[in-house]
Amino acid sequence: MAISELVQGILAGDRLALARTLTQVENGTIEGKSALSELFSYTGRAHLVGVTGASGTGKSSLVNQLARFYRQPSSAGPPRQVAIVAVDPTSPFTGGAILGDRIRMRDLSGDPGVFIRSMATRGSLGGIASATSAVVQVLDAAGYDLVLIETVGAGQAEVEIARLAHTTVVVEAPGLGDDIQAIKAGIMEIADLLVVNKADLPGVDSTERALRGALSLSHPPAQRVLHHGKMELIPGQPAPKTDELVWIPLILRTVALDGTGIPALAEAIGNHRTYLQATGSWEQREHWRLQTELDQLIQSTLVAGFRSRLTAGEYERVLEDLYLHRLSPLQAVERLVDGDRQSV
Amino acid sequence: MAISELVQGILAGDRLALARTLTQVENGTIEGKSALSELFSYTGRAHLVGVTGASGTGKSSLVNQLARFYRQPSSAGPPRQVAIVAVDPTSPFTGGAILGDRIRMRDLSGDPGVFIRSMATRGSLGGIASATSAVVQVLDAAGYDLVLIETVGAGQAEVEIARLAHTTVVVEAPGLGDDIQAIKAGIMEIADLLVVNKADLPGVDSTERALRGALSLSHPPAQRVLHHGKMELIPGQPAPKTDELVWIPLILRTVALDGTGIPALAEAIGNHRTYLQATGSWEQREHWRLQTELDQLIQSTLVAGFRSRLTAGEYERVLEDLYLHRLSPLQAVERLVDGDRQSV
Repeated sequence: MAISELVQGILAGDRLALARTLTQVENGTIEGKSALSELFSYTGRAHLVGVTGASGTGKSSLVNQLARFYRQPSSAGPPRQVAIVAVDPTSPFTGGAILGDRIRMRDLSGDPGVFIRSMATRGSLGGIASATSAVVQVLDAAGYDLVLIETVGAGQAEVEIARLAHTTVVVEAPGLGDDIQAIKAGIMEIADLLVVNKADLPGVDSTERALRGALSLSHPPAQRVLHHGKMELIPGQPAPKTDELVWIPLILRTVALDGTGIPALAEAIGNHRTYLQATGSWEQREHWRLQTELDQLIQSTLVAGFRSRLTAGEYERVLEDLYLHRLSPLQAVERLVDGDRQSV
Repeated sequence: MAISELVQGILAGDRLALARTLTQVENGTIEGKSALSELFSYTGRAHLVGVTGASGTGKSSLVNQLARFYRQPSSAGPPRQVAIVAVDPTSPFTGGAILGDRIRMRDLSGDPGVFIRSMATRGSLGGIASATSAVVQVLDAAGYDLVLIETVGAGQAEVEIARLAHTTVVVEAPGLGDDIQAIKAGIMEIADLLVVNKADLPGVDSTERALRGALSLSHPPAQRVLHHGKMELIPGQPAPKTDELVWIPLILRTVALDGTGIPALAEAIGNHRTYLQATGSWEQREHWRLQTELDQLIQSTLVAGFRSRLTAGEYERVLEDLYLHRLSPLQAVERLVDGDRQSV
């Protein structure tokens, strides 16, 4: 199928066209790039919700339940079109897998209003984040108004992926160790909502307490800090103006297995969207995301152009001189890049 | 002082010249870059040992004790010149700090054979790794034959920094939670030595067991895998040839506070060096490291050149079209980079 046909198919709701295009986009083919460009003007409508947490927190079941909830008509309106993107940036060496995937498939696969995509990404941090961003853009253009981006763990990769999202939900569970403040140093800062899942298990109070402690560390109340578009409140200060509204991350309890707490979580996600739109943060995040993507593309395009202009063996010869310590890294670069400039 | 004077000072063992140059190098000034180039031909001799682990493992005391051990004459030869580089890539927002630093200063500062440098790095992952690499090169050129690179935590940043090292020591301690297999997914793969510090505390057996479990996950015995120059053994296979010698990560117990286990750790570090040199892995790692550095420098040089050739407002105009969804990211890049190519 030609790309313009695939694109028309996607816009008309054809799931097969969508799946095929996602494969092209994920593999970074020319067809995928051209589809992304054609679809771009249809993007920007979806609410991107990142859900991240260590394995064992029941994160996949939670995402599952959220999707089911959004598929019911509610007082807030008709059912939403929901896409789930499951990304596992765990090292290919230890071999990560989204375990909840099969269960989810069985549960939701009959519903035409839900689209599920697992990304078996490998490779560099930047590569994973940019592939995820591209996949999410296609789903956005395809009319899914809620895209749930699920990642495993709390490393730098998860932080990068979570930054794609408008709303980031960090999932914890009782009994997974209590050095949360150390582990989650990076992730706490980007959390808009904190969920203690498996809240029917013993230890839930101490997990919530640990989260509250970590939250106060990463969101010090002593000063007003603007961070990823979030503003903190100083106790005793005058109330902020509308464009200074404050989002304090909430801690919620859920039991994904029986659905306890899911409506409250969905409501909090909706409230966060309202907050983002009321304060201009929604637009700010979009702009930040687009600029980051542009900058990364500029970089990779420049490097590709540079490589294509190298003569055979040129890079290898300079590398050899570097290995022999005849050239320093900076001198090696000067030789390669200066040669490049003059040859253009 | 002129750069060539500073460089001469460093080579003559002048600590003040060294400290000043490190500041220039860390800040990425022109003087720093020029010093790096002048010093490069003197590098490549030091054994770079990365020591990483979560806060609370007593990692700083361990590094301290190692430095003291290497400063004593031993059967293996005269005292070594030891440099310690303490890097804290913890987010500037939560505010990380190398807590052991002040204690270390008091303990070792009188010794002219020890040089200690804390890096208060902020900024991108790549930036931290490249600043650390540059600082380590200067210390190598200055004649420190052992450079201990200490990092906090087990995130992507620590993995990147650890990859600079020839030998990577991962430190654990009892009682810090037992979901090691999840937390250390990235770090276990790069560990050459695993240390259970605070081995006098209760729970040491279960910590060692957890590490052993994690190790068997990250180093599956079922297949021979070449990974960062390390080769795994397949049970029942013929013994490998010299260039196929196998390094199986060791687990050691230490009590840094009273020095228990430090000589055994130092011996294991020495054995790893011997292993690397006997198998050619030392050279492989050097080459890998230099090529990575070259590639990163090429990238940043290309981007800087591109930026300098942009006309005023050109980037901002394209960005605005991107925000308005008039251009897709790829179209935006084509406009900026094609314009760049034609104008050169």
